[in-house]
Amino acid sequence: MMEMNFNQHISGQFNADLEAIRNQMMGMGGLVERQVSAAIEAICGGETSGADDIIRREDEVDSMEVAIDHECTQILVRRQPAASDLRMVLAVSRVVRDLERIGDEACKIAIHTLEVADARNTQICQQSLRYMGAEVVKMISGALDAFARADVDGAIEVVRNDKLVDKQYAAALRELITYMMEDPRSISQAINILWILRALERIGDHARNISEQVIYLVSGTDVRHTPLSEIEEQAATKDDSKS
Amino acid sequence: MMEMNFNQHISGQFNADLEAIRNQMMGMGGLVERQVSAAIEAICGGETSGADDIIRREDEVDSMEVAIDHECTQILVRRQPAASDLRMVLAVSRVVRDLERIGDEACKIAIHTLEVADARNTQICQQSLRYMGAEVVKMISGALDAFARADVDGAIEVVRNDKLVDKQYAAALRELITYMMEDPRSISQAINILWILRALERIGDHARNISEQVIYLVSGTDVRHTPLSEIEEQAATKDDSKS
Repeated sequence: MMEMNFNQHISGQFNADLEAIRNQMMGMGGLVERQVSAAIEAICGGETSGADDIIRREDEVDSMEVAIDHECTQILVRRQPAASDLRMVLAVSRVVRDLERIGDEACKIAIHTLEVADARNTQICQQSLRYMGAEVVKMISGALDAFARADVDGAIEVVRNDKLVDKQYAAALRELITYMMEDPRSISQAINILWILRALERIGDHARNISEQVIYLVSGTDVRHTPLSEIEEQAATKDDSKS
Repeated sequence: MMEMNFNQHISGQFNADLEAIRNQMMGMGGLVERQVSAAIEAICGGETSGADDIIRREDEVDSMEVAIDHECTQILVRRQPAASDLRMVLAVSRVVRDLERIGDEACKIAIHTLEVADARNTQICQQSLRYMGAEVVKMISGALDAFARADVDGAIEVVRNDKLVDKQYAAALRELITYMMEDPRSISQAINILWILRALERIGDHARNISEQVIYLVSGTDVRHTPLSEIEEQAATKDDSKS
């Protein structure tokens, strides 16, 4: 194992390594965002061919997670990064895990879309699906942008939007249960919609997780399990990044 | 930052550090396992006071994740571990994330149990809940045992059991949907049971993830997203651990 270059982290090669995992992560983020958009298009527009594509590309997302995480481990071994470099490697490694989960959820949406499309009742909760869908896509791109620009305010905005998505989700669930009670024959269909709503809500959670890593990256503070109000407060009082 | 002890990883203090995070992880695992057992007891035995306790202790699980993950980062910074030491640190850091998620799911079970307990129909899917519940508790303790003993066969056994839980889950869902169609007034209640079944299925997934980290720890192979048959094959052909 090459352990001779301890202080190369000011060197060009180390910077290139860090830049590479960040870029790969961004590339993975772009793919995952497209998967989610396509999944929402599939359920809202009834485009089942899109759903097939999403399921086919799921493996690609999985491989990216494994490959990028492997790169991160290699950097830990070869470069022994410290401070903000170490935070970058750890943050990338955590973010790709959340991106992979988002890819999973997109795949679930596609699978349930195919089941719904076989039957009538594709119209259940269409407005909620469209609205939540647009919101979570915005959250994913917002979280990735915030990461790219090390933008804590942008990250906090995403955390804030997650609260909104949670509210939309609760309202959509109530609507769905009423629908099921009124038309019990539609229950199987409605359960598919239920899983899709759930997947959208989970995607929001993962986008929130990614944003929390932006805050960790910039300030070194682990804000997982921290309420929004506290995150906002910390950001307001602490402007210097300890790196 | 103390970076003078590069080769201390054969030293007592380094070993003590590694042992400490492993022990803390095991302690967290024990707590999480108790949370899940209590949650299953609450829904199957109707013990709502147990459910309250679980929700109260959720914060404890969260803090443990943050604290242990922080310790892992500190070891990376101070010790720059390589090879199997590095794998231990990375594996612990990933396992605590899964343990935290399992804790989350136990908490969700408790919350939905309280909602169910307020009404009639606590009897829906009782047998499936009990059966799946027993299975996932076995999986958690199996995964933790496999980690403690670096036991690849034990880990593979857990991965195998996850397939079983997935089947139980699918059968329970069919049962639940039939129930809802026959008695639409019970839909709100049944949806609570649906979330509990889902939580149990997710706990199985996380126990599987933990087991995959045992395989990574021992053999250095990343088996996330690898089918069971392939994992079994790899384990059969490769007996030497590359450390």
